[in-house]
Amino acid sequence: MSKLMFSSDYMEGAHPRIIEKLMQINFDKNSGYGMDDYCQSAKEKIRKACECEDAQVHFLVGGTQANKVVITSFLQHYEGVVSADSGHIAVHEAGAIENSGHKVLTIKNNNGKLMAEDVRDFVKGFYQDETCDHMVFPGMVYISHPTETGTLYTLSELEALRKVCDEYNMHFFMDGARLGYGLVASDTDVTLADIARLCDVFYIGGTKVGAFFGEAVVISRPNKVKHFFTSMKQNGALLAKGWLLGVQFDTLFTDDLYMNISKNAIECAYMLKQGLLDKGYTLFADSSTNQQFVIVTNDKLKELREKVVFNVWEKVDEDHTAIRFVTSWATTKEQVSQLLSYL
Amino acid sequence: MSKLMFSSDYMEGAHPRIIEKLMQINFDKNSGYGMDDYCQSAKEKIRKACECEDAQVHFLVGGTQANKVVITSFLQHYEGVVSADSGHIAVHEAGAIENSGHKVLTIKNNNGKLMAEDVRDFVKGFYQDETCDHMVFPGMVYISHPTETGTLYTLSELEALRKVCDEYNMHFFMDGARLGYGLVASDTDVTLADIARLCDVFYIGGTKVGAFFGEAVVISRPNKVKHFFTSMKQNGALLAKGWLLGVQFDTLFTDDLYMNISKNAIECAYMLKQGLLDKGYTLFADSSTNQQFVIVTNDKLKELREKVVFNVWEKVDEDHTAIRFVTSWATTKEQVSQLLSYL
Amino acid sequence: MSKLMFSSDYMEGAHPRIIEKLMQINFDKNSGYGMDDYCQSAKEKIRKACECEDAQVHFLVGGTQANKVVITSFLQHYEGVVSADSGHIAVHEAGAIENSGHKVLTIKNNNGKLMAEDVRDFVKGFYQDETCDHMVFPGMVYISHPTETGTLYTLSELEALRKVCDEYNMHFFMDGARLGYGLVASDTDVTLADIARLCDVFYIGGTKVGAFFGEAVVISRPNKVKHFFTSMKQNGALLAKGWLLGVQFDTLFTDDLYMNISKNAIECAYMLKQGLLDKGYTLFADSSTNQQFVIVTNDKLKELREKVVFNVWEKVDEDHTAIRFVTSWATTKEQVSQLLSYL
Amino acid sequence: MSKLMFSSDYMEGAHPRIIEKLMQINFDKNSGYGMDDYCQSAKEKIRKACECEDAQVHFLVGGTQANKVVITSFLQHYEGVVSADSGHIAVHEAGAIENSGHKVLTIKNNNGKLMAEDVRDFVKGFYQDETCDHMVFPGMVYISHPTETGTLYTLSELEALRKVCDEYNMHFFMDGARLGYGLVASDTDVTLADIARLCDVFYIGGTKVGAFFGEAVVISRPNKVKHFFTSMKQNGALLAKGWLLGVQFDTLFTDDLYMNISKNAIECAYMLKQGLLDKGYTLFADSSTNQQFVIVTNDKLKELREKVVFNVWEKVDEDHTAIRFVTSWATTKEQVSQLLSYL
Repeated sequence: MSKLMFSSDYMEGAHPRIIEKLMQINFDKNSGYGMDDYCQSAKEKIRKACECEDAQVHFLVGGTQANKVVITSFLQHYEGVVSADSGHIAVHEAGAIENSGHKVLTIKNNNGKLMAEDVRDFVKGFYQDETCDHMVFPGMVYISHPTETGTLYTLSELEALRKVCDEYNMHFFMDGARLGYGLVASDTDVTLADIARLCDVFYIGGTKVGAFFGEAVVISRPNKVKHFFTSMKQNGALLAKGWLLGVQFDTLFTDDLYMNISKNAIECAYMLKQGLLDKGYTLFADSSTNQQFVIVTNDKLKELREKVVFNVWEKVDEDHTAIRFVTSWATTKEQVSQLLSYL
Repeated sequence: MSKLMFSSDYMEGAHPRIIEKLMQINFDKNSGYGMDDYCQSAKEKIRKACECEDAQVHFLVGGTQANKVVITSFLQHYEGVVSADSGHIAVHEAGAIENSGHKVLTIKNNNGKLMAEDVRDFVKGFYQDETCDHMVFPGMVYISHPTETGTLYTLSELEALRKVCDEYNMHFFMDGARLGYGLVASDTDVTLADIARLCDVFYIGGTKVGAFFGEAVVISRPNKVKHFFTSMKQNGALLAKGWLLGVQFDTLFTDDLYMNISKNAIECAYMLKQGLLDKGYTLFADSSTNQQFVIVTNDKLKELREKVVFNVWEKVDEDHTAIRFVTSWATTKEQVSQLLSYL
Repeated sequence: MSKLMFSSDYMEGAHPRIIEKLMQINFDKNSGYGMDDYCQSAKEKIRKACECEDAQVHFLVGGTQANKVVITSFLQHYEGVVSADSGHIAVHEAGAIENSGHKVLTIKNNNGKLMAEDVRDFVKGFYQDETCDHMVFPGMVYISHPTETGTLYTLSELEALRKVCDEYNMHFFMDGARLGYGLVASDTDVTLADIARLCDVFYIGGTKVGAFFGEAVVISRPNKVKHFFTSMKQNGALLAKGWLLGVQFDTLFTDDLYMNISKNAIECAYMLKQGLLDKGYTLFADSSTNQQFVIVTNDKLKELREKVVFNVWEKVDEDHTAIRFVTSWATTKEQVSQLLSYL
Repeated sequence: MSKLMFSSDYMEGAHPRIIEKLMQINFDKNSGYGMDDYCQSAKEKIRKACECEDAQVHFLVGGTQANKVVITSFLQHYEGVVSADSGHIAVHEAGAIENSGHKVLTIKNNNGKLMAEDVRDFVKGFYQDETCDHMVFPGMVYISHPTETGTLYTLSELEALRKVCDEYNMHFFMDGARLGYGLVASDTDVTLADIARLCDVFYIGGTKVGAFFGEAVVISRPNKVKHFFTSMKQNGALLAKGWLLGVQFDTLFTDDLYMNISKNAIECAYMLKQGLLDKGYTLFADSSTNQQFVIVTNDKLKELREKVVFNVWEKVDEDHTAIRFVTSWATTKEQVSQLLSYL
């Protein structure tokens, strides 16, 4: 019997409606590099969903790629990007940002998040330093929403970050690899339109939310960058069959599919969370999205590993370990029940 | 009525067997980043097809990306890559190689190809120059097979290039974005095993030959690079759902599918070529692969544009223009017949 | 007896007035990084000499460094720099520009020079190409004055280059490593003020014209770059004791010293040139600056090598070779006489 | 009356013996790029002083430049450099290392130093992390000696760092911008030969210790890098008149001049330190080198600023501030006396 897998949200293929559409048009001939009708339609729908008519939308294949292309395109060579020390670009992208010539300027995270006051202290301190011309200028603020630990920014936190970006003339960029799961969380007060209004650029993750692959980069403030298309090409990030991305996002943004399938992940996560609490487990972090963190004894850890694939997050003490379970748009309630039965 | 499209070989989706397989496993849960069984199986089949048991195989998404990751991984910072001046990396990749810090050292092409004697003259001249320490060291030879103009290297030409690479301690890299179409050309004497034996690294193009997307990078000489996986990640080139690439190449390398579907493109191209010759057209270049180049009058050009999408290659004289038609694994004989009827 | 040396213009130290000044202030304490009074004074004098009150002036140590810092500072990541194929940045800087991420876009030189019409053809062709978004944007035109082969641009040639830069929104950059020798050539109609008026940025070479080392970068059009100081630091090009550069340029731009000592090199070069013509030698190139190129028989070449250090430029035919002699601000008439006596 | 300056150790020119030598040979003609006799002689003397016959020695102009060229030359593209968070490369080099594509992996400093056990924990943790292939490989350990806060490593601390470098196959690099002042400190047990034996590469600072400018990079373990000369050129770091560096280091390494003049700085620093203690001041850090840190009241700070130039280091509490005084090879006892009279 194969193990139950709760280790990530990119283990399944794509939503059936996407597959259906791809099959249907498989032998049509489309123009390359995103110059096709599906991309145009998807962009229009995304602009509408973002309530931002002027937004430029570009489709990329994956998250690290999106981070690298966006950051490189927005920053000047003397600028770096401010990130929480737990930010994906600071930890798990093999130095992709530095490889493009830019320093990641890290600030201690607060429950996975970057707080506006910490950013202001950092940037204010930078400009007050007489030697700041010998240092890397903070040119952009990078956040993930949901964060790497499943937490969410509140609307007022995002507004506060926007404010500090305005004060110090920095771009504001949101990594939305798991954006769907954030938008439908029960306790969020942040909408897609809010994000488009507050950020200069962000992306709507498809890879982890119903697509085979793909991230829709939305540049919501016009005239912020030039030749983004060429930057994509220069980074080897321009998909020849761009219409594959167009079809996927066009489907996801038809009939609210993106939001609806996101809800499934959240429902499964909440069912899991409640089940854990009911069984008396202690949560390691209080996440309202599709990543759930729980503390188990090392004996339980060992036992679970026989039946389930999950992530060891960190050691809590000699006898206890925090572990992570991840649900997705494709997780079933049956799978969650079975997982709970092992716990 | 929509126009006939003969402008590229990446306008259709994927071979039906690939779609079938993707559908079948859509809700299975797979490990990410190429750590799944499909990738392992595909790698094994590719090693066998290359007759090279020790080869490392890595799956990337597209051609420019493959060129960038391979070249960056193999070169030291003081080295550049030798290419024909018509090479894709020298012209149409938006400076992706220079963006990674390396100069493309161009040599005049000979019918789209890089000739061993020209490379030797160049590299010998480099080392004879007393000031060579002030210049970029030639660290790799890059060729495309088929070339950007549809031509093919002969086995002896490849052997000669290998020889000069050995003489001057350079890596030998083949861009095989259209490799299938070269392997099944009627007049080639070069096999996949030859390529694996002669090159240090090359890739087998999937994007243009039956896959939705994907290039299989084969490092056929062991111990040539370290941490290629990390280089992929650093370039934003590591697909989260790596098994999508595994499934595609596993299917293409089952029952000779890759070769068989390549043949269709070649048959269509030859049918087109013969038809053009029969009608008295002059070919612009003598290609034995899936790109065909023909000279038309400017009047004909204008007329054709009403009905067909193709590429204007270059102006031949005041009254004539060379144009390019491209066939693919998915082109039908009916489409070729119709095209010929317009000519 | 040691050999006569005519192989470069950077073999001697500095003009005695510079040494005198450095000795005089040796134990004074100066602020670092160019924040001293000598730098301010030198900048003011250079602005006056350039008849350009708004010019930003920065002092760098050497030519390749100046090229690298200037080009990196002015270009966006999707841009390259247009250069003659004989340009120093294209040949003899070990890929310094590519190492910073930018392609050098070469055009065939015309007697060492880049002609405006050739640049226009190239850039016009670029923008007419439908695939230009897949290519490197021409963002700057780089020229050397005098060129690598000692030739000079006329005022109308520079004006024509300025015009094409305006037409296509490119920066215009002049490498003036040997600028002094160009400004005092007998047949030039180009003044320092012309250069400041026509270029966006250029540098006045000190290393080859009387200084121990140093190049004064003049950004003559305001608001063209931001944080040039930080770019210098980032490239390891910010001299801690910046006042060493300030003192040198302050001295060179006092009492016309820069122009006066440049004249000595030119007089020596002309004496040599006339002597060669009188002896019946054929010049390889007609240079009016401090580099002189002459054709000698291979026997003569061999004989000369016993007594003189010079550069072999290129093979002319089986029996003849072009060689280069270089004079400098420090060359004496006696040394030229002696050289002529060997020829 | 001009202020007393105690703000850095690069405010004066060069030791008189260097000036004398430069004057003496000013009109001699020397080969460029370090191919002269002075460089050869200086290299030989440095090898002897380091007791390392096989060492490669290269002369660079400044510290940031040396750090950039060394780190770039030694690291592969997937590697970063481990540094204390207070390391110069991590803070005050405007992102020079990231600009070359490499991440600086920071570890909390211990009194300005990087402790072997902390490095081991970090690197061990890296390799134990299952996702380490998604992260930047630690390829080098960078330390400054003396550190940015004037502290010194003990011999056993350096040996422990060497050990962890051996365990994890990392290069060991010492930034010796102020090396002289470390070597002659009264409480050090580390010699130049120890450093050459333990490090793979380090540099002997000249800019701050008696030279106009210059850092002697010593690669004490053979076959560690290839084409360092070309790396210098590529970074714009190859001085045309390399003999200027040769003369300076040849002079500094004749008759123990480097050590002797370093001692003057240390004697002045100790005189200052003792004077401060005698007057009842509290030291902010206990430095045995040429940087001295003391705590003053804000009133005193304000008063001192009228008469002395020094550095504000950090705020200690509402009423007190830590400040830094720096002595150099050129500081006189009179200057120290005068400074003490103000305190």
